[in-house]
Parts: sequence; structure tokens; C-alpha cells
Amino acid sequence: MAPALLNATRRRLLGFAALCVVASLSPLPLSAQTDPLPSWNEGAAKASIIDFVKRVTTQGGPDFVPMEARIATFDNDGTLWSEQPVYFQAAFIFDRIKAMAKDHPDWAGKQPYKAVIDGDMKALAAAGEKGLLELMAATHTGMSVAEFSAIVREWVRTARHPRFDKPYTDLVFQPMLELLAHLRASGFKTFIVSGGGVEFMRPWVETVYGIPPEQVVGSSGKTAFKLNGDKPVIDKLAEIEFVDDGPGKPVGINRFIGRRPVFAAGNSDGDLQMLQWTTLNEGPRFGLIVHHTDAEREWAYDRHSHVGKLDKALDEAPKRGWLVVNMKKDWKVVYPFQK
Amino acid sequence: MAPALLNATRRRLLGFAALCVVASLSPLPLSAQTDPLPSWNEGAAKASIIDFVKRVTTQGGPDFVPMEARIATFDNDGTLWSEQPVYFQAAFIFDRIKAMAKDHPDWAGKQPYKAVIDGDMKALAAAGEKGLLELMAATHTGMSVAEFSAIVREWVRTARHPRFDKPYTDLVFQPMLELLAHLRASGFKTFIVSGGGVEFMRPWVETVYGIPPEQVVGSSGKTAFKLNGDKPVIDKLAEIEFVDDGPGKPVGINRFIGRRPVFAAGNSDGDLQMLQWTTLNEGPRFGLIVHHTDAEREWAYDRHSHVGKLDKALDEAPKRGWLVVNMKKDWKVVYPFQK
Repeated sequence: MAPALLNATRRRLLGFAALCVVASLSPLPLSAQTDPLPSWNEGAAKASIIDFVKRVTTQGGPDFVPMEARIATFDNDGTLWSEQPVYFQAAFIFDRIKAMAKDHPDWAGKQPYKAVIDGDMKALAAAGEKGLLELMAATHTGMSVAEFSAIVREWVRTARHPRFDKPYTDLVFQPMLELLAHLRASGFKTFIVSGGGVEFMRPWVETVYGIPPEQVVGSSGKTAFKLNGDKPVIDKLAEIEFVDDGPGKPVGINRFIGRRPVFAAGNSDGDLQMLQWTTLNEGPRFGLIVHHTDAEREWAYDRHSHVGKLDKALDEAPKRGWLVVNMKKDWKVVYPFQK
Repeated sequence: MAPALLNATRRRLLGFAALCVVASLSPLPLSAQTDPLPSWNEGAAKASIIDFVKRVTTQGGPDFVPMEARIATFDNDGTLWSEQPVYFQAAFIFDRIKAMAKDHPDWAGKQPYKAVIDGDMKALAAAGEKGLLELMAATHTGMSVAEFSAIVREWVRTARHPRFDKPYTDLVFQPMLELLAHLRASGFKTFIVSGGGVEFMRPWVETVYGIPPEQVVGSSGKTAFKLNGDKPVIDKLAEIEFVDDGPGKPVGINRFIGRRPVFAAGNSDGDLQMLQWTTLNEGPRFGLIVHHTDAEREWAYDRHSHVGKLDKALDEAPKRGWLVVNMKKDWKVVYPFQK
């Protein structure tokens, strides 16, 4: 037995001896007794996921994938939670600018800050990428990673999404939570691979998705270590280090994970290369695109959307055999609070 | 129950039902029946490790650490395997230069290549860091990550260490393998955090240490994604991206793992900041330094060594309460082949 497997086995035996006594009374695995994807409507989409997971986990079968190779990567914005009317990290930035404005009286007359304070989206758009980077630097840097993490936690606890008047983390997709859980119950290691900031996601993803901080790949700024007396600190600097989007996603996957995923899910052209890197390989592979088709329960957008534009990847999906999930048709509920 | 814990529990129940029946017959955990560190001599070093692991895993105890926070980071060169007479990655570079020389006739008269081909360490030293970077670029870039990985695998399979005439991967430290296994059996997630190249380590660390590629943090060069027809490729570029050494180690830990370790092990001043970042924190923490004191079985060096210089970290150890392992005194065997 390989050392990794041996150790994993020992660890499982040690930690769950008590539960095992109970488990050993039941001859059937849990998944055979219950539907692992109850929020998915019956149909081709759900069936293809169930079938794929069954094939790669069937020992001795032609599509069996050893457990250590069961790597699944998920985009976050628009794939695991909503991204409208703006990326939730942008909502965080706007909230922070408003909260910080009282200590920066000059912002009232200075762009791009004024645009945010006035809620003037036209002026904000005019400030362009340079303006956004300035807002990013003002809200994300000049503090330690621990301080930033505390600010994010507080925002997640208190901020409310304008349309639903609920915490942003309530706007996660129930069917995708079930998919994550089904993959993990089937021996997959699930990762987030997002264009969003890694430090913005890590404080809450473990509670919300069951994905630990060390399984989050995202965009990042440079940081620096220093020792303040006997207190070590990592400071967030105002310099971009890595943009985990588009062709950056396979680069990020290679850098952080070091193996090619077997399963990847995204929702926009920013996920195109991740889907290619995952599926254009030997052996069984699964590519999934969440198509936002439900204006009533969520939002409907694709080819011409400013946020989450899905155009090239939608064209490429049939050729590559990627599953395009029709949110309106395939999902029984969208958010957990709709259950 | 948190989603992460719930899923972990389900997965364990599903996967190990058969083993559980066996486990449930035995009322004692495996670790209580056997010595987890048989290659460590009895004494303060071994006792302090065993005691620490017991304390952080004792549920309800004052030093209990939840499983998801049990992060342990290990330097590689000099901590998990030997690093003399040169870092093994340097040996790889030299072997590659010699192997590639037949396709580069101009190297015979050109430094720093000539120095390597002639085995002229003086000339090589004179070429300095610039020379080393040139050799690094010649051997590590201009190919895909998959091609590089295959080259490393072949080298690991065929190269022999000059002193022991054994594969380099035989020169791992048996007591450290046992420590890794003991931590994992106690619910720790073990990571490598090395100044060595991440692409150089990933092809073999899983087999040798039981550490999967996604738990390796190391130095890296830039890479780029491209699609060759229907074949996606990640190319290694001749530009340094990140040096995971000294103050870079906590930065790398924060970037890749996103939480502070509870346990860290190193052997040189390149590990000083990782030890500080790990141990100068609240709650139980363990810092370990492997002190190379055994010229007969391995090597003896510290303050004035060119490779693996241990000076500042040795001075700081008593003040910080770090365990300094005396290889000669504390280890029953050094390498697995000496068992």
C-alpha cells in the first residue's frame, strides 16, 4: 500500500472507531439509500453527474480513478454563489469605501472614491480599471492578512444583498453545495479556483462550502513577512501578484494543486481554459458550465453580460462534451433559503 | 455539525465500512499499541514530540487543537532528506547539464557550463548566482511542466548519490518519515515548505513522503498556458516567480495554505521565519530543528556551512523553546537502508 494511502487508512481507523461500530451495522453505503442531489431535477444533467461519479469510483471498472487523483475544481462567482448585480467582492469594496470615508474627508471630492460614495455607477465605470485598482488598494492593502481577514468576516456577518436582503453567503447555490458534498463523499478533493481574491474567500469558504483555506486558489496581491518585536506579521502590499482568471486558472491549478483536475465547473469565459485544461486529457473527465437562465429566482445572462460573460465557453461546450446546466430547468431550488 | 466535518464523516463512513468491522473489534487505537517513533532514541526529544501530539489531540484537554487546524510544515533539504555535498536539486542540474552537453557543443568552452562539465567547483563558484540562474534556466525551462516532470522522474530513478551509491530518494531520514506518519495518524495535514523547486519535488514526494503534490510549497518559475490545437500545455518560462526561503516561507505558507501551522520543522536559517511564524502565536505550537551532528552516518555542519547554514536559528532556539534534534544522539538510524 502506498504510504499516503496507508496513512490515510490509519487515520480514518483511529479517528472514527466509535462511528465505525454504528456504520458496520448497516450493510449499505449511505449514498445508495438517499439521493445525493435532491435539489436537482431529474433529467440528463443530473443523470450525467451521477453516472460520472459512479464510473470513476467503480473499482475495477474501465473509468476508475484512484482516490488521490480525484481533484475537482470550482469557480466561485456565478458557479457556487451569485455574482449579480456586481461581483460580491466589489460590493465588499464599495461598502468598505463608504465605511472608511469618514476617516478620509478628501474622498468626497475625489474620484473614484466620490463615485462609490455617491453610488454613481457611471462615474465609476469612467474611472476604468485604474480606478478599480485604486479602490482595491485602498480597501485590501496597508494592513496585515489577519486584520483583513477580520474585516471580511465582519462584512460577511453584517452586509446584506440589495435584492434579497440576506447575507451574501446565503446566496450560494444549493444544488452546487450538494454536488460538492457528493464529490467529497465519493473521495474527491474539492478546490475553489476563482478570479476573486484568495484572502477575501478564505475567511468564510470553510463554513459555507466545506472547503478548507488550503484548497482555495485565487487572485492575490504581494505580501511581506516582518517581525514586530516578538510578533510575526504578514502585511498586504499594494502590488498585484497573480490574476487567477482565464489562462491564469490552469496556471494557478498547476501552481497550487500540481495535478490536472478530473472535474471542473465554471460559468463564464474566465473558466474556459480551466475547462480545457481539465477535460482535454486522457481518461474520464467532466466539464460543467452553470448557465444563468433564471431571471425570476436568480438572474438570466450570458453572451453580453458585463459580469460573468459566457460566450466562447458556451460555443465550445458541445464540441467538448461539457454539461451546460440550465439553472431554470435543472435546479429545483437555487438558494438554500428557498428549500 | 459544520458542512466540512459532516462531509468528512460521511466520506469516512462510506469508504471504510469494511475496515471498520475489523477496527471495531479492537478497543485500543493503533498508536497505543505500538511506538510511533521507533527510530528515535528514548530521551527528551522523542518524549517532547509524543507529549505535544498527545496534548493537541486530547479532546477536552486545555491544548486541544481541532483537526482542521492541525497543519504541520516541513522544510525538505536537510530536514526530510540530506543536502550534502550539494543540494540534491543542484546535483540534478549538474547531471542534466552533462547529459544535455552533447546537443550543445559550445558549452565545452563556455562558463558556467564548462565548469559543470569539467567538475570544476571553483570555476562554478566564481560564476556566482548569475551562473547558477543560467544553469537553472537551461535545465528547468523551455519545456512543459509535464516534460520536466518526466525528466525528474527519470533522474530520481537512475541517479546515484556519490557517497552512498544509492538513489537520492534513499537518503531520506527514517525518523522524520515516522514523525510525518505519526502526525498524519494524529489528524495533522503535513506540508512541505521548501526553498527547492516545487516542480522538482512534486514528481516523487507522494511516493517517498506520503505528501501529495497539492501539499508542496516551494520556489517556482513563471509558467504560461497555451492550447496547441486540442492539446493544452503549461510551459515553464525562464523567469523566477517566487523564492520560498527565509522570509519567503511564511509568505508561501500564507499564500498556499492560508493558515498558520501548529508544527514546523527545519534545519537552517532559511527556516528561521517559518519557525517564528509558526510558534510565536497563541495556543500550543511546536518548532523543531534538525541539527546535523553525525559525520559518520550523515554529515556534521551548522554555523559555517555553505549548504544548510544553521546559525541564527540555533541561537534563537532556546529562547523560543524550539526542539533542537541532535541527529547523532536522538536518532537510532538515519536512513531507511540502515534499519
